[in-house]
Amino acid sequence: MTALPTAAHPSAEPGHASFDRMWAELAPVGRHPGTGGYRRFAWTTQDATLREWFAGEAARRGLDVVTDRVGNLWAWRGDPDVAVAAGTPGLVLGSHLDSVPDGGAFDGPLGVVSSFAALDQLDAAGFRSARPLGIACFGDEEGARFGIACAGSRLLTGAMTAERGLALTDADGTTMADAMRSAGRDPAGVGRDDETLRRIGTFLELHVEQGRALGDPGHPADGPVAVGSSIWPHGRWRFDLTGRADHAGTTRLEDRHDPMLIAAEVIQQARAAAQSHGCVATVGKLRVLPNGVNAIPSMVQTWLDARGADARAVRNTVSHLAGTVGRTAIEESWTDATDFDAPLVRRLSELLGGAPVLATGAGHDAGILATAGVRTGMLFVRNPTGISHSPEEHAETDDCHAGVDALVRVVHSLAGEDA
Amino acid sequence: MTALPTAAHPSAEPGHASFDRMWAELAPVGRHPGTGGYRRFAWTTQDATLREWFAGEAARRGLDVVTDRVGNLWAWRGDPDVAVAAGTPGLVLGSHLDSVPDGGAFDGPLGVVSSFAALDQLDAAGFRSARPLGIACFGDEEGARFGIACAGSRLLTGAMTAERGLALTDADGTTMADAMRSAGRDPAGVGRDDETLRRIGTFLELHVEQGRALGDPGHPADGPVAVGSSIWPHGRWRFDLTGRADHAGTTRLEDRHDPMLIAAEVIQQARAAAQSHGCVATVGKLRVLPNGVNAIPSMVQTWLDARGADARAVRNTVSHLAGTVGRTAIEESWTDATDFDAPLVRRLSELLGGAPVLATGAGHDAGILATAGVRTGMLFVRNPTGISHSPEEHAETDDCHAGVDALVRVVHSLAGEDA
Repeated sequence: MTALPTAAHPSAEPGHASFDRMWAELAPVGRHPGTGGYRRFAWTTQDATLREWFAGEAARRGLDVVTDRVGNLWAWRGDPDVAVAAGTPGLVLGSHLDSVPDGGAFDGPLGVVSSFAALDQLDAAGFRSARPLGIACFGDEEGARFGIACAGSRLLTGAMTAERGLALTDADGTTMADAMRSAGRDPAGVGRDDETLRRIGTFLELHVEQGRALGDPGHPADGPVAVGSSIWPHGRWRFDLTGRADHAGTTRLEDRHDPMLIAAEVIQQARAAAQSHGCVATVGKLRVLPNGVNAIPSMVQTWLDARGADARAVRNTVSHLAGTVGRTAIEESWTDATDFDAPLVRRLSELLGGAPVLATGAGHDAGILATAGVRTGMLFVRNPTGISHSPEEHAETDDCHAGVDALVRVVHSLAGEDA
Repeated sequence: MTALPTAAHPSAEPGHASFDRMWAELAPVGRHPGTGGYRRFAWTTQDATLREWFAGEAARRGLDVVTDRVGNLWAWRGDPDVAVAAGTPGLVLGSHLDSVPDGGAFDGPLGVVSSFAALDQLDAAGFRSARPLGIACFGDEEGARFGIACAGSRLLTGAMTAERGLALTDADGTTMADAMRSAGRDPAGVGRDDETLRRIGTFLELHVEQGRALGDPGHPADGPVAVGSSIWPHGRWRFDLTGRADHAGTTRLEDRHDPMLIAAEVIQQARAAAQSHGCVATVGKLRVLPNGVNAIPSMVQTWLDARGADARAVRNTVSHLAGTVGRTAIEESWTDATDFDAPLVRRLSELLGGAPVLATGAGHDAGILATAGVRTGMLFVRNPTGISHSPEEHAETDDCHAGVDALVRVVHSLAGEDA
């Protein structure tokens, strides 16, 4: 097994300086001045800025940037195809740079920035990798614009067909295909990309924790980094609650068919059903028609997100709710439980001094790759409040640095010459 | 008192033919092919089409069309300023042509079309008016675009200042001033228009009934037309329900501050409070931030419309609700009870063979004029279901024709040479 060369242009930034620099550079991109939250949506100018930033960081380190058929970015140290032929496919770190509407700074970017920073530390230490190292930046992970989360990895693995993905529309009716074209990208090539997939020997996604399992005062000894074991089964449902449009001033209460009252019941009973089945359930999105102050609505579309450790409990939550309110829950998506590679999970935990192992309720590109058969793991960095998908999302700088150090240790072990 | 001339170009359409023709002409304007409802909003191309239609019908009958400072249209038979000088200001009929989002065909247009049709019948009968006759078309009655109902009459009477009105914005952030400019109208002249107001000796608005007081099987002998006595006190309030944005998959139920649950309580308690105070209350509009399926909202803005026969009961409904949910109700607007001219109400009812006299929960331009001291009355045409602000809003053609006949009788009495 031939050792691959170290960086052509080794970083001159000592310690965690490169992490801090990159973090500061990304801070203003797509940040809304009013809310303080991020609006980094797929195939927008903000997205283009983030992609250029990624390519620039790769170039700075002498990495080759490849865009796959779907538009995800891959920065490679070493030739991944030569390594595939030699039976030593690459070790890929990474995450995504897009955000939910008014999201936080950490969800996504922490994994990308930490990956570059870990490479800098490895280079500074003269680490010689026995296999290509890649850093991935997945596109459209949050699905904020077109409604389907992990669109980049779903298209890459074929979990979502190109036909379905390209036809998705945003709030303005723009299709994903047209959005790609506007961003200077030809959608004709979109589809499962086996050439890219076979280059990934192992994928490791570092992510900010989105609960407070590590921040919980009950587990003070947990430390700043955990290892992901699995992703909860989760799904999205929609209730189309129809009523009868009518005048808010002149229609007697007893004559009304007001779907807003049913929506209120759905919101409350979703919480109650989740509680009784040990799951979480959320109504985070509503569409009211016509949404006029003096108009009894004709319809209130009500979206439900439900998740839990046990798939049957999640499904029971939804059917219990639908039964209670007497309305149909239309399934928009369902993802079964995803287990990360069990030997890898154990090894990661051992490498990190017995780091805690957590399941998560959040979906990730890592989950999509794992489902597609890629050997996949995740690391979580402590989130002291557990708040995520919010401008208040936060991780302490020391904990972020600890995440970088954890990646360094893992790469040493998984890709070093003794690996 | 000099009798004014009859029509320069008398209508050649016998009976109710002109009503039927005008009704058919307006049917497609601004109708949404999907919902079947009308989207006729202020200062849009649909609005311009309706204004052209109005001017065309006026021209067909030899009426002079005057646009007031605010943009309301007035079609006059006879010189209203000469009449003001002579102490015989005009009798004005009319209503509005704009709609709520996905509204019905009748709310507004029925009054305008019936006014033209009544004039045709008067002309056909050789009626000679002792005072000028006007037909008014108020702009932006529904407030669908800029959020304030009866904007045209409020600006005309000074009930809303030009400064406030012109600064109102639509959902795209366009100000009313810019919308007027786009429609080719200079907003600089907007403001209370005394010249127009003094021309109105009496204003009479015919409108489709918006409850089913006349359609109620309990009152079979009521007939198709009623006389308005007053407009209920009514107001709009907003609750800014703040919570904490968070991830729908990873945040434990007990860690959540989910404002959607408070919104559900507001919706339900609004109904309960209205019931216990004998009022009506409606939550017809919500704004969810960020409105993502997988995001616990940071805020849910919740609008309340409340009305009733008694002002104190309406205010008690709102304070009761605010107390129950423990949140502040921000008052966006309040309109006290408006009584139409009592001798006029009695006279109208007598003229129409003892027509029933009704209070209404809906606001109207007639109410704004009455508050400004104009002698004002209303006629209501039966609505068999009571449905309004909906594509299903309906009145039988025979009842609409009866409304025209009622106007004819009233104009004979109020503006005839023996008046």
